[in-house]
Amino acid sequence: MNRITNPTLAAKVTTPDRAAEHIRPGDTVGMSGFTGAGHPKAVPAALAERIDAAHTAGEDFRINLLTGASTGEEVDGELARVNGIAKRAPFVSDPALRKQINAGDVEYTDTHLSHLAQQVWFGFHGSLDVAVIEVAAILPNGLLVPGSSVGNNKTWLDLADKVILEVNDWHPREYEGLHDVYYGTKLPPHRRPIEILDPLQRIGDPYLRVDPDKVVAVVQTSAPDRDNTFAAPDDASEAMAGHLIDFLRHEVSAGRMPKSLLPLQSGVGNVANAVLAGLADSEFEHLTSYTEVIQDNLLRLLDSGKLDSISATSFSLTREVAAEFNRNIESYKGRILLRPQEISNHPEIVRRLGVIAINGMVETDIYGHVNSTEINGSKMINGIGGSGDFARNAFLNFFVSPSTAKNGALSAIVPMVPHVDHTEHDVHVIVTEQGIADLRATAPNERARRIIDTCAHPDFRDRLHDYHDRAYARSTTARHAPHLLEEALSWHQRAATDGRM
Amino acid sequence: MNRITNPTLAAKVTTPDRAAEHIRPGDTVGMSGFTGAGHPKAVPAALAERIDAAHTAGEDFRINLLTGASTGEEVDGELARVNGIAKRAPFVSDPALRKQINAGDVEYTDTHLSHLAQQVWFGFHGSLDVAVIEVAAILPNGLLVPGSSVGNNKTWLDLADKVILEVNDWHPREYEGLHDVYYGTKLPPHRRPIEILDPLQRIGDPYLRVDPDKVVAVVQTSAPDRDNTFAAPDDASEAMAGHLIDFLRHEVSAGRMPKSLLPLQSGVGNVANAVLAGLADSEFEHLTSYTEVIQDNLLRLLDSGKLDSISATSFSLTREVAAEFNRNIESYKGRILLRPQEISNHPEIVRRLGVIAINGMVETDIYGHVNSTEINGSKMINGIGGSGDFARNAFLNFFVSPSTAKNGALSAIVPMVPHVDHTEHDVHVIVTEQGIADLRATAPNERARRIIDTCAHPDFRDRLHDYHDRAYARSTTARHAPHLLEEALSWHQRAATDGRM
Repeated sequence: MNRITNPTLAAKVTTPDRAAEHIRPGDTVGMSGFTGAGHPKAVPAALAERIDAAHTAGEDFRINLLTGASTGEEVDGELARVNGIAKRAPFVSDPALRKQINAGDVEYTDTHLSHLAQQVWFGFHGSLDVAVIEVAAILPNGLLVPGSSVGNNKTWLDLADKVILEVNDWHPREYEGLHDVYYGTKLPPHRRPIEILDPLQRIGDPYLRVDPDKVVAVVQTSAPDRDNTFAAPDDASEAMAGHLIDFLRHEVSAGRMPKSLLPLQSGVGNVANAVLAGLADSEFEHLTSYTEVIQDNLLRLLDSGKLDSISATSFSLTREVAAEFNRNIESYKGRILLRPQEISNHPEIVRRLGVIAINGMVETDIYGHVNSTEINGSKMINGIGGSGDFARNAFLNFFVSPSTAKNGALSAIVPMVPHVDHTEHDVHVIVTEQGIADLRATAPNERARRIIDTCAHPDFRDRLHDYHDRAYARSTTARHAPHLLEEALSWHQRAATDGRM
Repeated sequence: MNRITNPTLAAKVTTPDRAAEHIRPGDTVGMSGFTGAGHPKAVPAALAERIDAAHTAGEDFRINLLTGASTGEEVDGELARVNGIAKRAPFVSDPALRKQINAGDVEYTDTHLSHLAQQVWFGFHGSLDVAVIEVAAILPNGLLVPGSSVGNNKTWLDLADKVILEVNDWHPREYEGLHDVYYGTKLPPHRRPIEILDPLQRIGDPYLRVDPDKVVAVVQTSAPDRDNTFAAPDDASEAMAGHLIDFLRHEVSAGRMPKSLLPLQSGVGNVANAVLAGLADSEFEHLTSYTEVIQDNLLRLLDSGKLDSISATSFSLTREVAAEFNRNIESYKGRILLRPQEISNHPEIVRRLGVIAINGMVETDIYGHVNSTEINGSKMINGIGGSGDFARNAFLNFFVSPSTAKNGALSAIVPMVPHVDHTEHDVHVIVTEQGIADLRATAPNERARRIIDTCAHPDFRDRLHDYHDRAYARSTTARHAPHLLEEALSWHQRAATDGRM
């Protein structure tokens, strides 16, 4: 089936190599892509070849790359391989690119996912030279059927001087109708309320728009999204899921939450997958989800009939589940919407709907400051993603991690975190396989007791209490959240040198 | 003039002592009060006497106290004097109470000001036993004319089992019509958009409502709000104001902001006052303000004709300016609105309007993490207040501080902050008297160079560069935001022991 039925744009079909020639050294390029879904599959590799040739010829050639979130080997991997990225935002997961960021070779701006689009509109990132956007089809009238993620595509298409489209027929043609692209966004002072009252409410169009005069190239591809594998739930993740679901049960019985809960957001990962699996086996019904990413078990929860609807901006599926979804896509329409990430993660909507936010963490300190992004305060892992958008504005938020890492060598509960992504003002509940600590409406010392007693691994519990007790004893006039500064980061220093805390 | 014209409530007029008898040991009490304005003036002192007597008799008697923000000597001061507070939220400024918090005797939960009302609605703070609310008048139909702050009064009146009203005739009777109390708030999943499109838009009622059956006592008072004194602008604060206003000028000329700017929010304090004074002398016109607090110079800016309108939740005036305002209140109607703090600080509105947020800080680290609340990571100063509500959701935010404190002994730019209130993901611009660092769309190492070169005091600049350079050099695989963990907090350790960094 022909996916490019607009004659003007069909006339612009070309090769990835020719398309990539429109990207110049120093350009700021907005690409599609969010959690390995919907990123361009061909032009970035062709661009990488150009860059490589330029570097071989002794010329400078790097770009500033903006996306939705993480992409795939075909974007960040290819461009990192040739040292083709000067600046990057707002989220990364590619190992080669991560290495370059941590070598100091790439300037990475770690940004809340709901903030990037508006910041580019505001002019904070300079002008956007080129957009490279993957879509599922181009309609006769020139409208674009989005692919497996919406991300920042609307903004990149609106703002870029030049547009390159990749039409990927791996995406089912039947994607048409699955998306809701809001075109009401304006710059202050002209903004208006975003009228979403429930997760599935439509406020936009099923299509992306593009000015055909800006389109400099159209490329045809046929390549799958990233195969997002997850480890099977282990005892620890099942224990965490159990604690979390029991906590929700308790909140419902205390009258603090409806029986069908409130819209769920869950970060990507094994624990989130375990929570979703646990919900599938629970008594909860008529659940809804207002989240970033649809992973396997969220789809299974929908299939099970426990979950009524999902609003997200992207998929993050295993290849197998993606194939199954693509075969059965019609059955999901009316139950799934993909939106731009500024809407899927919008503070206004997250607060209005009263989202229950479930996100992973690297570690928390005894007072409930959470580190989500940087090992030892220095080394970037992936980025904050949407965790801040959701956690800050959530009805209730959970930060989840096994109590230890590296076979018990590192504790996820530490005296002081060396990097803070979520402050004590924002963190509600901490979950490890050991237990769950409710920090709502508590002061720091009470938080310390709860986190240590219920969440820390027994191997570290006494030392954490000891640190807290000694800090409290010594800080006679600074006992609000007492620390021993000379010792506060010693666990991380030891981890850096000895590999264990 | 009689301020209590409803017969049912007039019949409940009593003494502060009798009113205070309705408050029991262990009660959670919601009081009015925000930045020393609109707090109850008589009942807390009477309560303090009861508590003191109970303690003398060997009985336990403390309360959990929730307010809008800081109160005055008559509330926090009186209750702290008798050790009458067990738990406190969301903001404090009373020296005696601060001392008790830092002695570990009071559990203080430091909360975003836009979050507390909803968290009490959600049940996170347990039940609210008593509300003690100051108002300007009680109308024949039982509606309440609010006083000089709205704060969380609507929520306390709605949720408390028992209500004590203080009718303070120091507030002008002509306050009637100055307030906009939104009654559309609901619990998720029943929330709707908050339809504010410009700072002065009315969405509520000019009155507070109370169920007369819940009113257990009405007390008459005649006492002024706190006299909020400010130091006259010094060279440093004028330099900071100059940098900030030049920056705004530059943003306008770059086309990133309208000529009349966007709604201004400014924290309380000398620097904010200097910025507002600077704006009065600038070319900017038709300014607006969507803020928490109206301080002297914000009123003067309105008087000057440069500022068209102010939405806030409270005043924080000098006694002299308050008296003048109270005499001329009619002339301010239609230009000033006071709203509940969940609306004045609401993320939805702050983001929609595109607020320019200007807040003080204690210190920032070289990567742009800001500490607003805790000295040496342990000792509470006041609390985060609304700075997080505004900064996170602002179009543009500024964090402002002199580059040094204690006569040059301490640097406001440090290697690592020992407490984070605003993360690198949220901080746009740093201002000191030395200069201004634009951190938008930058990676950590570039931020470090800008902050050190433009904002740090020359006395500390070389040592900061040296720290950053050595951290970068050593951290070959962790150069995203390199730190030397064994040294990162050494400046604060030295400050704690030697009084200088």
